[in-house]
Amino acid sequence: MTAPAVSGGLPIVWQLRDRCVLLVGGGEVAASRVVHLAAAGAHITVLAPASGLHPDVRAWIDDGTIGAHVDALYRDPTQLVRASGQDYDMILTAIDDAERSREVCEWSRARRIPVNVADVPDKCDFYFGSMIRRGPLQVMVSTNGRGPRLARIVRQQIEAAIPAAAGDAIMRVGLLRAKLRAHAPEAGLASERMAWMSRICDTLSMDALARLDDATAERWVREAWPTRTVPRMPWQWRVSTVVSWRDITSFLMGCTSMALVALWYRRQ
Amino acid sequence: MTAPAVSGGLPIVWQLRDRCVLLVGGGEVAASRVVHLAAAGAHITVLAPASGLHPDVRAWIDDGTIGAHVDALYRDPTQLVRASGQDYDMILTAIDDAERSREVCEWSRARRIPVNVADVPDKCDFYFGSMIRRGPLQVMVSTNGRGPRLARIVRQQIEAAIPAAAGDAIMRVGLLRAKLRAHAPEAGLASERMAWMSRICDTLSMDALARLDDATAERWVREAWPTRTVPRMPWQWRVSTVVSWRDITSFLMGCTSMALVALWYRRQ
Repeated sequence: MTAPAVSGGLPIVWQLRDRCVLLVGGGEVAASRVVHLAAAGAHITVLAPASGLHPDVRAWIDDGTIGAHVDALYRDPTQLVRASGQDYDMILTAIDDAERSREVCEWSRARRIPVNVADVPDKCDFYFGSMIRRGPLQVMVSTNGRGPRLARIVRQQIEAAIPAAAGDAIMRVGLLRAKLRAHAPEAGLASERMAWMSRICDTLSMDALARLDDATAERWVREAWPTRTVPRMPWQWRVSTVVSWRDITSFLMGCTSMALVALWYRRQ
Repeated sequence: MTAPAVSGGLPIVWQLRDRCVLLVGGGEVAASRVVHLAAAGAHITVLAPASGLHPDVRAWIDDGTIGAHVDALYRDPTQLVRASGQDYDMILTAIDDAERSREVCEWSRARRIPVNVADVPDKCDFYFGSMIRRGPLQVMVSTNGRGPRLARIVRQQIEAAIPAAAGDAIMRVGLLRAKLRAHAPEAGLASERMAWMSRICDTLSMDALARLDDATAERWVREAWPTRTVPRMPWQWRVSTVVSWRDITSFLMGCTSMALVALWYRRQ
């Protein structure tokens, strides 16, 4: 197997749950950073003058999404340390001052705190891709800064390809797995449990799985698991996985065309 | 705007070009790590006994994809430092020894070196998602460990939705942009350049853009840019963006059905 050519950075998922992150700046770019950080469960501190806050940032300070707000302009690295004296776990800047941004970057790198300076790639240990989220499902699209417009088009195509129900389906299947594990907890059954779950996921549609309620999940574990069979679903749910509305439209257009031809032929 | 619920970690792209990464272990998991690290342009050092190397890992040591191989089992943290005495920029372990893995993790964290221990989430500063690569285009799918089977299904759907030509198209559009910038370098034209490029990307199909050769790109810059028009493409290329083979198949199935109905009707 040949190794791939260099295509960009290393796409990874950074663990931030309950980690402390400092965000320098409170404008529009800062607001977009907060969305990412909040989805990752970080404790967010924003350092920016209250007067210039983006309305979303202000709202998130009020509702607690942003845990702490230091109402000040960034001036020097003493502001980059937590009130407790400990270091932050990650620092992001989204300010228009290139000189100050460079200072934050160099100070952070000297302490090996992961740092991102908005719009200055060489001052970033990491950067952000374009994100699509459906509950626990996260999809990141990145082109390493090349072809931003095409990246957006690809992102839209990917977004359209992800079943709307995918997030819910993943959540509901997690619930079914938990119920199964409670019902048949033996370590020796691990591979059988996995095989049964996999067959269910492969056979049923995302839409069907997303509609899986607690009572049904319990019935499946009680009735279908003992025989290791895939539970039956209403036929309508299964048809929708094979045929799309677009297929049906094209089929009907074909029918109409031939009907018109037949009519024309009879009138001759 | 409400902030999203916590959905997992923070998907980011970590900069590794020309950074030094240590990979402890040389088996199958290590091999999959090398693919990611090589695509990110890292200098890779593998620490593992030569006797137990995965065939791919051995091949990559031979062809230079893996820059250095230390033929030894991991025993203690003195092995986690580069020959020069400097620290690595990232450390990954993929070994079956939980005790040693924990030691590597704690040593790395004390020095704030980003660390990933395969299969031990709480010993990871970051983890890997499922990756799709097309040249400079990288797509990462992650479900934070939930619903691995559904994640794979979603990944397949996403993979099918990404035009095969997307990677090439992004490369070729980058080339067109470079030619345009050389032809009309004035700073004052930046937004006009961007608008023209965007219109081209929005109008022409990925397939068409992927076929864009040097001569054509130059002709476009010379002939279409002065009037800010979108260059014309052969009509076949354009049709393929609107109608798919699946549409055509459905249409023909409709035609056939009606023809059969008509025949049956005549025989009555």
